[in-house]
Amino acid sequence: MKGKIFLLLFCITAISYSVWSQSHPLLLLSKSDVVQLKKGINEYPLLKDTYRDAKTEVDFALTQPIAVPMPKDMPGGYTHEQHKNNFMVLQKAGVVYQLSGEVKYAQWIRDVLFAYAELFPTFSRHPSTKSYAPGKFFYQSLNDANWLVYVSQAYDCIYDWLPVADRNRLNTKLFRPMADFLSVETPQFFNRIHNHSTWGNAAVGMIGLVMNDTVLVNRALYGLPNEVASDIIKDNDGGSINLPGSKAKGFIAQIDHSFSPDGYYTEGPYYQRYAMYPFLVFSEGLSRNRPDLKIFEYRKAVLVNSVYALVNLTNSKGEFFPINDSQKGMSYLAREVVPAVDVAYHYGKQDPTLLSIAKEQGRVSLDITGLSVAKGISKNLEKPFVKRSIQLKDGANGDEGAIGVLRSKQSKEELTLVMKYTKHGMGHGHFDKLSFLMYKYGQEIFQDYGAARWVNIEQKEGGVYLKENNTWAKQTIAHNTVVVNQTTQFKGNVQSADEHHPAPYLFETSDSHYQVMSAVDSTAYPGSILQRSLFLVEAGDEPFVVDLFKITSNKKNDYDLPFYFQGDVLSTNFSYKTKNILKPMGSQFGYQHLWEEASGGASPESSSFTWFQNESFQTITSATIQGDSLLFCRVGANDPSFNLRRAPLFLIRRKNIQNTIFANVYEVHGHYSRVHEIASNTKSKIKNVKVIYDTDEFTAVEVNRVDGTSCVVAMALKNADAKAAHEVKSLNLQWTGATTVQERNSVSIKNKIDEK
Amino acid sequence: MKGKIFLLLFCITAISYSVWSQSHPLLLLSKSDVVQLKKGINEYPLLKDTYRDAKTEVDFALTQPIAVPMPKDMPGGYTHEQHKNNFMVLQKAGVVYQLSGEVKYAQWIRDVLFAYAELFPTFSRHPSTKSYAPGKFFYQSLNDANWLVYVSQAYDCIYDWLPVADRNRLNTKLFRPMADFLSVETPQFFNRIHNHSTWGNAAVGMIGLVMNDTVLVNRALYGLPNEVASDIIKDNDGGSINLPGSKAKGFIAQIDHSFSPDGYYTEGPYYQRYAMYPFLVFSEGLSRNRPDLKIFEYRKAVLVNSVYALVNLTNSKGEFFPINDSQKGMSYLAREVVPAVDVAYHYGKQDPTLLSIAKEQGRVSLDITGLSVAKGISKNLEKPFVKRSIQLKDGANGDEGAIGVLRSKQSKEELTLVMKYTKHGMGHGHFDKLSFLMYKYGQEIFQDYGAARWVNIEQKEGGVYLKENNTWAKQTIAHNTVVVNQTTQFKGNVQSADEHHPAPYLFETSDSHYQVMSAVDSTAYPGSILQRSLFLVEAGDEPFVVDLFKITSNKKNDYDLPFYFQGDVLSTNFSYKTKNILKPMGSQFGYQHLWEEASGGASPESSSFTWFQNESFQTITSATIQGDSLLFCRVGANDPSFNLRRAPLFLIRRKNIQNTIFANVYEVHGHYSRVHEIASNTKSKIKNVKVIYDTDEFTAVEVNRVDGTSCVVAMALKNADAKAAHEVKSLNLQWTGATTVQERNSVSIKNKIDEK
Repeated sequence: MKGKIFLLLFCITAISYSVWSQSHPLLLLSKSDVVQLKKGINEYPLLKDTYRDAKTEVDFALTQPIAVPMPKDMPGGYTHEQHKNNFMVLQKAGVVYQLSGEVKYAQWIRDVLFAYAELFPTFSRHPSTKSYAPGKFFYQSLNDANWLVYVSQAYDCIYDWLPVADRNRLNTKLFRPMADFLSVETPQFFNRIHNHSTWGNAAVGMIGLVMNDTVLVNRALYGLPNEVASDIIKDNDGGSINLPGSKAKGFIAQIDHSFSPDGYYTEGPYYQRYAMYPFLVFSEGLSRNRPDLKIFEYRKAVLVNSVYALVNLTNSKGEFFPINDSQKGMSYLAREVVPAVDVAYHYGKQDPTLLSIAKEQGRVSLDITGLSVAKGISKNLEKPFVKRSIQLKDGANGDEGAIGVLRSKQSKEELTLVMKYTKHGMGHGHFDKLSFLMYKYGQEIFQDYGAARWVNIEQKEGGVYLKENNTWAKQTIAHNTVVVNQTTQFKGNVQSADEHHPAPYLFETSDSHYQVMSAVDSTAYPGSILQRSLFLVEAGDEPFVVDLFKITSNKKNDYDLPFYFQGDVLSTNFSYKTKNILKPMGSQFGYQHLWEEASGGASPESSSFTWFQNESFQTITSATIQGDSLLFCRVGANDPSFNLRRAPLFLIRRKNIQNTIFANVYEVHGHYSRVHEIASNTKSKIKNVKVIYDTDEFTAVEVNRVDGTSCVVAMALKNADAKAAHEVKSLNLQWTGATTVQERNSVSIKNKIDEK
Repeated sequence: MKGKIFLLLFCITAISYSVWSQSHPLLLLSKSDVVQLKKGINEYPLLKDTYRDAKTEVDFALTQPIAVPMPKDMPGGYTHEQHKNNFMVLQKAGVVYQLSGEVKYAQWIRDVLFAYAELFPTFSRHPSTKSYAPGKFFYQSLNDANWLVYVSQAYDCIYDWLPVADRNRLNTKLFRPMADFLSVETPQFFNRIHNHSTWGNAAVGMIGLVMNDTVLVNRALYGLPNEVASDIIKDNDGGSINLPGSKAKGFIAQIDHSFSPDGYYTEGPYYQRYAMYPFLVFSEGLSRNRPDLKIFEYRKAVLVNSVYALVNLTNSKGEFFPINDSQKGMSYLAREVVPAVDVAYHYGKQDPTLLSIAKEQGRVSLDITGLSVAKGISKNLEKPFVKRSIQLKDGANGDEGAIGVLRSKQSKEELTLVMKYTKHGMGHGHFDKLSFLMYKYGQEIFQDYGAARWVNIEQKEGGVYLKENNTWAKQTIAHNTVVVNQTTQFKGNVQSADEHHPAPYLFETSDSHYQVMSAVDSTAYPGSILQRSLFLVEAGDEPFVVDLFKITSNKKNDYDLPFYFQGDVLSTNFSYKTKNILKPMGSQFGYQHLWEEASGGASPESSSFTWFQNESFQTITSATIQGDSLLFCRVGANDPSFNLRRAPLFLIRRKNIQNTIFANVYEVHGHYSRVHEIASNTKSKIKNVKVIYDTDEFTAVEVNRVDGTSCVVAMALKNADAKAAHEVKSLNLQWTGATTVQERNSVSIKNKIDEK
């Protein structure tokens, strides 16, 4: 069956691409664009600089022998890096040819492409079997799709220059076979809703546009016929090949399913950054050649909106929040985000705040979108991109969870809180529902571990995900969220996790005194309902955070709440004892990778812990209860190849209890200079935190400060209506809306706590 | 006896300070200076900015209630920080009064001083007993001396403005008693050769100059009479109160004994930074009021030269090499170094390279030296301060060891090597003879742990040295040097260590291909002679280091050579096994603080280890021998209060051998960008390192590269003469001078190694 379809497709296409000829370039450049760009290079510094850098790189490549080696290596190895370098330089060489008009660049591109056309038919696939979809020039088809997305641009730029015979040779010997290889011959790669397939779809579609091959373009847009199935049902990351309950496929389906209406990409920002390039460059090609699709207006301009989502999911340094499988340090300065910002500016509403991001990026696309941006910047049109608190809904319809970001509005200290209550995020998702991150400026206060991987560093197994990515990084205990019975959410099953999502409860940022986000999960641990509510309270110079993590279960459990702090333990108000022999804390679900360094018992009132990181002090004050254990642990056990960072954590452990609430306050306070050796505000302002009311209906806590003042934080748990009036009589507390934060000079309230 | 002397001194002085009156200010400013400075503030931006900042700070202080609390707290606590803030602001207020002419500043200073005069007689000493020399307003006399050094400047500025009665009141109720308190009443503090006493001497001398009290000035310059002794023979750091074999004391003796002729300060740069302020500001006062001393020309201008030594002992970020008890991160941007640089410029030769340091500091002294610097900078006179390779001899006569710094001269990668073969450095010295540090730009490749201390952070015992400073940070195993029989040098005895020093063997930096430094220690481990020779070889873009650590002993021993690397273990060419239970590696000499995380055995040829740090790769290639153990360890065992950083180390352990040589090559290679995810040169260029000759007379090693070339490094061990000719016939190797580095295309040499 597969063979038959392949033959049929081939016949149709063999005719289709030679029927008429268009004027090239047509993908990312047109003849008139080239005229404008040549002019722009002289006028706009950013365009000039980018062009100069590209030309320098290409000129250097032209001095080197052409190298198109037989594929052999993994990432980091010679053949992988050489093929990668080839496609990067080919793309730039195409643009440089168009903008300089110098034939030597076209000749070089032709020669390299001929070498690829020679190599292509001599073998079937890359020798490595590490991928669920082995590639041609690379170990995985994904990289081959990268290759074709870039190389089709180079080909487009020399297409009209090439004699017809050369074109036909390349079309029939290299590009059409390559497109078929990535699609009909590798359906498990091409026919998914996944960043891999987005690359595959774009690659096939872009070369289709260049070759004017409507079969390829349609295949790219709408996928392979349903009948083409695959025996492979999981990728290397444990992700399902088929989207549950959907037969969606192809580029349009990627847009439909990968983004929520808010522009959130379901794999998270690290992978969005990676996927944006094919989404946007193919869309640019489509907007020129298939204007009927109105691709940039599609789904209320979701592609443009997704660029805003991407920029909003960064810390103050522009680094992506490293949820899911992320290599930390990746930021919107990455090469893939440059065209994203440029496209969003040009095809969006010429938003001047995007120019400030482009200015940080320091370069632009060498096309009409980059021209617009470089022009805007040269005219000083840019305005600051102010990142505000934002909730981005997940799911194609925006009804499958969300990610919340609270950013301080008025405090001197810039605090950012992130809570993850999105969908799982497919194969690259982590079991981290209701986990949170905290930043002060660009500095992590509570960190996400990210992925256990050194991308493209050969010594670490060629840069692939390491086995500790599964055994550690994805596990619940590796995140700042509650672990029930030392077991990972969904027992670590990706398929179950993919089928569920938490429910956003509220996201309120309009009050000047505080902002709050809250979400409920009832599926990660069957029988247990977890609700986390994070309040960012701004009072005085230094904001603080109140975290209410409420658990209602159908039975008694053990609960662990870890905090991945960084820096030096300064002081605690509880006593602890360090261990002189370290042992792993468990045997599965990530606990096998933890050393227990010290343990202590909760203080009678609240337990507090202050640590020092770089130039600031941080304190957790926790309304612990008698019997709680407070542990200092460290990542690194059972790590035979040193694949794990020795990250420390502070762990609150509460055992054998059914319903409970973890009420914690987090402060970032004071300052220390190593040069001046002057320390200020090294101590917490919080005396204690008390849960003063906790029923199914309401939770209220009292935060008592050292200076005698206090602050009551209360919320309704069954009614998030902003207009509902609430009252807790025993506390003499009334408020409107789901939550309230009330400052008091001195408070004395009778406690009422439901306990089971 | 003590009482009698005190009474006598008091009587003389009671007369001395009222005999005649001079025109004030006279310490750091004169009336004519003030006129020039007023003009300069309008002309030179740096002076203007510094003045504006000082005025802002003082103006704010004037809006606050005056607070001169009864002393109670340790550093970080309220009373300590308040008194510290008082003296800082008082000093600035004095200058602001002189430069603005506004009487409110003088009035405020007077009022604060009156409050101190009230407080002073009401108690004897600060209640803390943590110091060997408890202070008055502070827990240690040292801080009181800081106070007087700063406050005497403020007093000087309002002296002429004060009515005589007020002056007499302050002289008799506050300042003279304070000067006596710091000297005759605390001789164990005042009468040493130590940075503490430098502060004490300067404090007494400066207030003496202001009060025109020649007794105080002479006491400051020449110390207390010998007869005034103390029962205390050690300070809190284990340092001796009396300098062995010397009765030297007083400020002039500090200059004689603290600096070597090269300007090296025997406690190292961290403490030099701290001591420079009293050395220089008192000297400024002396240069104006005791021109007969020619203080800035004294000992061939050693005070000015010492500023150059200080700047040279920094990494590329200006941070001091953290040898001895140093808090890491301290740099020449510290407030104490600003006047040091300004004085060296003004009283030295107006060296324009110092202006570039001043420019980085971003502020100047508000006196005539700062005026010179601000003027120079405003006229764009500055030139880069190029830090070159330098050896600074230690000891008053320059014959007691040295510190060597090699800096790459031509490589793209800026590498810095530091080897410590100085004297012990008194109470703040570490047992780290022949240890080395390595930097790439400002980044530590092989780090020094520094001190176990959080300066001025109250939660860590008030910021004092922690007990782990003795049990860990000072121990030999905490440093990148050989440990014999798991025992600290001199068995950890400060007094023995203070009596000995290594012998510099050679320091050669003139060759364009390599630089080398070598030193011998024969006293740290009686019966064993240790010689370390570090070659910085520049060939190609990336320099490498050859380290020959030769040991000759009178018996068989165990040898440990640790490397305090930082970052991620990427790969090794030897197999190792990680431990699933961690235990301390020993019970004393610092080993009780180490966990053994993994161990392996040496590879047959050479053993190599590559790690990743920030953006670069590093490799150690070691000519290990059969039986060597290769361990990965980590600091942190037996650390009940989390006072230790969890620093990793790589340890080469060679057991039960008499004479041996550790021959290692260190490379920093390649680059990785987290944003671009592109890795280059991740692998070492070195295939192996072989010791091809090793006798009492010569050592030769062969460094074989992966590309087939090799490099022979040889040295004569008994003759450092630069003109001596050497030959090793069996190797067909001839050279002139003590060392040679010879590149070879391919080498095959018969090995000849002496073994016992």
